[in-house]
Amino acid sequence: MSKSYRVAIVGASGAVGVEMLRVMERRNFPVSSLRLLASPRSAGNSLDFRGEGHTIEPLSLDSFQEIDIALFSAGGGISRDYAQAAVACGAVVVDNSSAFRMVPDVPLVVPEINPEDIKSHRGIIANPNCTTAISLMALNPLHRRFGLKRIFASTYQAVSGAGARAIHELRSQTEALAAGKPIEKEVFPHQIAFNVIPQVDAFLDTGYTREEMKLENEGRKILHLPTFRASVTCVRVPVYRAHSVAVSAEFEKPVDLAEAKAVLKAAPGLQYLDDGYPMPLDAAGKDDCLAGRLRLDCGMDNGLALWICGDQLLKGAALNAIQIAELL
Amino acid sequence: MSKSYRVAIVGASGAVGVEMLRVMERRNFPVSSLRLLASPRSAGNSLDFRGEGHTIEPLSLDSFQEIDIALFSAGGGISRDYAQAAVACGAVVVDNSSAFRMVPDVPLVVPEINPEDIKSHRGIIANPNCTTAISLMALNPLHRRFGLKRIFASTYQAVSGAGARAIHELRSQTEALAAGKPIEKEVFPHQIAFNVIPQVDAFLDTGYTREEMKLENEGRKILHLPTFRASVTCVRVPVYRAHSVAVSAEFEKPVDLAEAKAVLKAAPGLQYLDDGYPMPLDAAGKDDCLAGRLRLDCGMDNGLALWICGDQLLKGAALNAIQIAELL
Repeated sequence: MSKSYRVAIVGASGAVGVEMLRVMERRNFPVSSLRLLASPRSAGNSLDFRGEGHTIEPLSLDSFQEIDIALFSAGGGISRDYAQAAVACGAVVVDNSSAFRMVPDVPLVVPEINPEDIKSHRGIIANPNCTTAISLMALNPLHRRFGLKRIFASTYQAVSGAGARAIHELRSQTEALAAGKPIEKEVFPHQIAFNVIPQVDAFLDTGYTREEMKLENEGRKILHLPTFRASVTCVRVPVYRAHSVAVSAEFEKPVDLAEAKAVLKAAPGLQYLDDGYPMPLDAAGKDDCLAGRLRLDCGMDNGLALWICGDQLLKGAALNAIQIAELL
Repeated sequence: MSKSYRVAIVGASGAVGVEMLRVMERRNFPVSSLRLLASPRSAGNSLDFRGEGHTIEPLSLDSFQEIDIALFSAGGGISRDYAQAAVACGAVVVDNSSAFRMVPDVPLVVPEINPEDIKSHRGIIANPNCTTAISLMALNPLHRRFGLKRIFASTYQAVSGAGARAIHELRSQTEALAAGKPIEKEVFPHQIAFNVIPQVDAFLDTGYTREEMKLENEGRKILHLPTFRASVTCVRVPVYRAHSVAVSAEFEKPVDLAEAKAVLKAAPGLQYLDDGYPMPLDAAGKDDCLAGRLRLDCGMDNGLALWICGDQLLKGAALNAIQIAELL
């Protein structure tokens, strides 16, 4: 590879794909050429990058000739079907889907937490689930100091985590209700406007959803902590952008509140709010995750409760992917 | 007292007061006379009860002559200032505020859970906090079977828990945002439309809010379980009506999932949903609380995770108060 990279984005027209372009612009990522790839439906449309229009091409197995870095964000099926083709062409794949996250020889990386894992890659590096990435940005520094055992967490997940059509669905349902018209449902199984839906992703036999188990499974891999336990309830809320998580965390060592606050304030990529608390409206559009409401947990002895917000399109997806690409 | 009661409602014009009228109508509560009381601001307005208009009178210390049952729902300050006057007049007070809940000789009652506590009253019976009542409707039957030790809970609380003006605030903010106009904030400290606010009630020195500690404090009293621990995060969400709670609960005895489901299905005042899950839109306007998503908690050994929804104006307030009055 040269000092400047030939980049392809798979799923360029999606909510995360568009954010990837903006993040590369903001961070001056060294792009020598850019290839935008998407389904035939989106092909032909144009997206701006650094003031120039780039036409979206239809994704094919031949799309990855002369590409150094291929950023995938088009769902697990597309990643499974096309990532190996990109690797065979010599590209390094940074995959935002869940397809390869738990594959043993695929590094799963949050650059502030386990950048060294990237070295062992064999062509594919996975980007974690959005809620996992955001939660670990605050939990990892506490883990390093006090030794994380387990968490109980509930999420408040924005609709944009379900893509651009979900943003439209919240808006159109809100307008329909204001006008006294029937609502339309397409992305979510139930009305999301003025409601909350305690389901994100499909149910497993255990009664947990796939989304809920990602925090435990991906957390173990990213933190190198195979004993980590996480009981999570993932809930979709009528918020456009940025996820929030309420967490009770138990640690191996006795916790000290002042020290824990100092740890969070010093953590890279995280802002700890002493006055007030963060909300999704504050986190939307921010690279940093936000934490607040740290307190000694009254449900367990070596416990801390806290509240974390993060833009799931940025740290939860596009930003983390570009940060991984920067590590390369 | 005769078989029919002379009833006064303090705070008749509020969100809960109006629901009390509807609940008494629906349940054919034996009302021989009805006196509606509120602040001078609302006095003179009229509210319907069983097809007849009743004029709201201004509350005074003389308002409780010839009253058998006084239902208070006008905030803690009004209860502290007027409840003893009502008792002195011979009325039994059912108080929906937090003023007397933790006073040792005031029973704090959920009729499905601790109806026998009512017998020891000295004129005042307290109605629990809305989130507490709704959560305990599902936790109590599990406690009776498995022995409750502690819970970790996060709430998704509707704006109507903050009164009628809060309902208006969500609606007007939603409209303003749709029209591209600036929003107005009066009830909530931050924008509630398309946002979530991790604060309900005032903060304590511990970092928890008053609302968050009610589940532990009131839960101990209602369940007669002084060792009960609860770590709670209370969050306001842009939902008009009905609260939701995500709970991880630890028990003394080993739990069995099938047995726990059977326990919930048999619980009075509770509907357990086997298919799908309840949402606030389903619980709004329902007397019964709704539970779903019961599963073995993957964060602890004798644990169950579940999701509970309930109309906080009904079981969380007006319905529970009328049920207490029925027990009298």
